[in-house]
Amino acid sequence: MDKSMIPDLSGKVIAIIAPGNMGAGLATRVRAAGFSVRTLLAGRGEATRMRASQAGMQDASPPDIAACPVILSVVPPGRAHVLARELAPALAAAPVKPLYVDCNAVSPETVKVIAETITATGAAFADAGIIGLPPTADGPLPVIYASGEAAPGLAALNHAGLDIRVLDGPVGAASTLKMCYAGIGKGLTALACAMILAAERAGAGEALHAEMERSQKMLLGRLEGSIPDMFPKAYRWVAEMEEIGGFLDEERPESGIYRGMAGFYDRLAGDFDAQGPEIAALKRFLDKK
Amino acid sequence: MDKSMIPDLSGKVIAIIAPGNMGAGLATRVRAAGFSVRTLLAGRGEATRMRASQAGMQDASPPDIAACPVILSVVPPGRAHVLARELAPALAAAPVKPLYVDCNAVSPETVKVIAETITATGAAFADAGIIGLPPTADGPLPVIYASGEAAPGLAALNHAGLDIRVLDGPVGAASTLKMCYAGIGKGLTALACAMILAAERAGAGEALHAEMERSQKMLLGRLEGSIPDMFPKAYRWVAEMEEIGGFLDEERPESGIYRGMAGFYDRLAGDFDAQGPEIAALKRFLDKK
Repeated sequence: MDKSMIPDLSGKVIAIIAPGNMGAGLATRVRAAGFSVRTLLAGRGEATRMRASQAGMQDASPPDIAACPVILSVVPPGRAHVLARELAPALAAAPVKPLYVDCNAVSPETVKVIAETITATGAAFADAGIIGLPPTADGPLPVIYASGEAAPGLAALNHAGLDIRVLDGPVGAASTLKMCYAGIGKGLTALACAMILAAERAGAGEALHAEMERSQKMLLGRLEGSIPDMFPKAYRWVAEMEEIGGFLDEERPESGIYRGMAGFYDRLAGDFDAQGPEIAALKRFLDKK
Repeated sequence: MDKSMIPDLSGKVIAIIAPGNMGAGLATRVRAAGFSVRTLLAGRGEATRMRASQAGMQDASPPDIAACPVILSVVPPGRAHVLARELAPALAAAPVKPLYVDCNAVSPETVKVIAETITATGAAFADAGIIGLPPTADGPLPVIYASGEAAPGLAALNHAGLDIRVLDGPVGAASTLKMCYAGIGKGLTALACAMILAAERAGAGEALHAEMERSQKMLLGRLEGSIPDMFPKAYRWVAEMEEIGGFLDEERPESGIYRGMAGFYDRLAGDFDAQGPEIAALKRFLDKK
């Protein structure tokens, strides 16, 4: 690897945008390793500022963000390219170019477009995918997979409290991995919910639970955790399922599987907001003994 | 329950149609319990006749089938109503009416239509759903769930080598249970295959396998069994996924999940017949260490 591609972390500062649950969780661990963490708070609400403050993240201007050796973009899928475009002028103006890392759940196609926006400023770009839950101060760390020519430089963050694993592949490989992994796990949650709701509507919920208890105990145990965990996240998974559907190519029938899941999660998200009957039916199913 | 609804098994004979893997497997166990088993072989090929003979099933005419106290219909989903219509004249002519049990993977709507065809002949009807693999001479028995007014009578077969569980619900409840159970298990296999193939196409198969090995070991272990088991059955699962899609109501987005799976299994079935690249890619993934 070109030595100039290893970010200089001697100043012990990086940028993580934004302070959502994942961004703030990662910041907590980076700070515990002795680093300071800059973020963008302009225009953000009170809850976000509070979360940033609790994680010890410092509000900074785009030029101060661009002056960090590494910038991690950790935003909802729909915001990934928007953030890259917002920071592009500051990156273009920066005398020393940072490594910009897109860690978001976007398709390989989308991440390639983001990479073009960033590399046009002279900054280095790495594709990344985060697998695991937002970390707490002492819980398990999620794994950050990275790919692309500049990805090996990201491994320097293994000395900054993170778990970085470099894939031998171009920009797009890390996003592909994240997408396929999420497509199995979040897909399983979707179809189990669809079938549980169908059984409950037909009065067969009790029998389905008993049969799963008998012959699919392992799977039932997993769903007891993953289904309630999904309720508050369903609204975010809509875009993620759409990204997977697009990634699979609309001409393949399996693309329709994920388009159907996007619509299904959209309905569940509305039901969760309205404290509606479907979330209640899923809870009732999982509470059966 | 009306006592007249308990089938008289004193003659120690029942009918099981047809001698597919499941039908012949059930016949083996019923015969081991001291019963003889009649079936329909008219127009069937050599392989089917051989399987029937190995299971000790006797070829019979429709009137001889109609003379059995219990008739189990165990056929591919698309044949379920066809068989009921074929047997209807013999059932109508039978002096003592049998209990006709539809054990097929059809939707609750389809089974209600079949019930009408049968009850119009004066015969009793029970809905049933089989959960589990075709039994061997000494392996585990699949469970036969049954519903509808006449279902309690089917419990008499618990003395004839079978495992019958009666659900407290109308005709349609057993089919609903079977459909929801299959929709989770066969659905999981479908989406795992879709994501594995996407990862393999993008060169991320190795990384996906390693990450699942690390964080989804239980799920990976399950897929190592369920994916190869699916290859020769994919062609049958096309209709089953379509039945589930229809059962979910086309206006619900989750119906699209199963329509997508039907198309996907159809493509995999073709690939299996042609010894094509997708089955090979799935095997390669599962063989990684």
